[in-house]
Amino acid sequence: MPTLYAGPTGNGRKPLILVKLLNAPIDIHFFTWPTKEIKQDWYLNLNPNGTQPTLVDDSKHLKLFESNALLEYIATTYDKEGKYYYKENEPELYWEQKTWLYYQSAQFAAFNLARAIISVNANHVDKFTENEILEGFKIIYEVLENQLKKTNSGWLIGNKFTIVDIAFGAGNHRRLEKLTGTGYEIKDFDALYPNVAKWYNNFLSVDGVEEVLNRKS
Amino acid sequence: MPTLYAGPTGNGRKPLILVKLLNAPIDIHFFTWPTKEIKQDWYLNLNPNGTQPTLVDDSKHLKLFESNALLEYIATTYDKEGKYYYKENEPELYWEQKTWLYYQSAQFAAFNLARAIISVNANHVDKFTENEILEGFKIIYEVLENQLKKTNSGWLIGNKFTIVDIAFGAGNHRRLEKLTGTGYEIKDFDALYPNVAKWYNNFLSVDGVEEVLNRKS
Repeated sequence: MPTLYAGPTGNGRKPLILVKLLNAPIDIHFFTWPTKEIKQDWYLNLNPNGTQPTLVDDSKHLKLFESNALLEYIATTYDKEGKYYYKENEPELYWEQKTWLYYQSAQFAAFNLARAIISVNANHVDKFTENEILEGFKIIYEVLENQLKKTNSGWLIGNKFTIVDIAFGAGNHRRLEKLTGTGYEIKDFDALYPNVAKWYNNFLSVDGVEEVLNRKS
Repeated sequence: MPTLYAGPTGNGRKPLILVKLLNAPIDIHFFTWPTKEIKQDWYLNLNPNGTQPTLVDDSKHLKLFESNALLEYIATTYDKEGKYYYKENEPELYWEQKTWLYYQSAQFAAFNLARAIISVNANHVDKFTENEILEGFKIIYEVLENQLKKTNSGWLIGNKFTIVDIAFGAGNHRRLEKLTGTGYEIKDFDALYPNVAKWYNNFLSVDGVEEVLNRKS
């Protein structure tokens, strides 16, 4: 059986949520956080970057990393009906979904969220970085707010809950978990982004999501 | 005909290179850099994030952004034989390719390169950020070096030049272009990463690549 190596972080929870929702036949190697395991040789042999999550399927000679690549892989492999993602037979939504997965991975998670978390974890204060990140988040949440007005479905792409909602939902949860009460907190969030606030509640209400978000060991 | 909106940056050049190599039937709206166009209303209507590149195909109701999503879209649509990418009929390489596209987009381009360029452009000096980025680049280039030893083909995935090489090649070019002579320069690069240095020369030698890299207007 394939194994998913993942811990309780914004990126780790994305594939954990999808595996849970699909009840996919994948073993979970859960990291209690923080962990030194991801820098150990046995793990670096699976994921040379020393990050998580990683999905290994020896029967297919696959060692995959990058959380949104894992979302695409798990959806393609274990969700043949496309319950939680748009398949290529709906090309407009399929490519919109793809755009937004990269957008979440690069702009939201790596460029803004990870930068902020690194600074907070290190107690490093730098006003230039802080302003850059807060401005960066502002642009992204405005884009999400307008997108939700456009879809008017309560979800980010089309009219159903997809892996794009999982990616941004897990990211928004991590932002709140790590940045609330720090200089990176976004003030008046619910008033500024009411559709995002509502969407996030929709996300939390999906059966199984909160259980994964709350898992610690 | 579809239109590609792109300028001479690390991300903009990725789809420009692929369109050039494929001679794909796509109009180019080339931004002379830096440009204010990407923050103007007409452009924000195409790409709400105000970044480039963007690919618009009205006939298919597509407005795509994120450079590596564009690489996937252009390859899938205009390179049916898979000259420059691995198709799903080679699943091991297809998913490895996917992993590495996200890795380039998130870890290389957004987390390290974009952060460094922002600081350099603003003349902002912050040793914490500088060390973080240099350590981040070091991990990635070590991963690339080991990957090139493993493939032993001169290319990052499998045995051919693919969109993964375009993504990392354009990124490496941008790093040299923007960070040489700054605190973010990587000293002794060719000695530390000889396989990467050789791979980068391979990339520059692909017919058409240098022409795109040198285009200014």
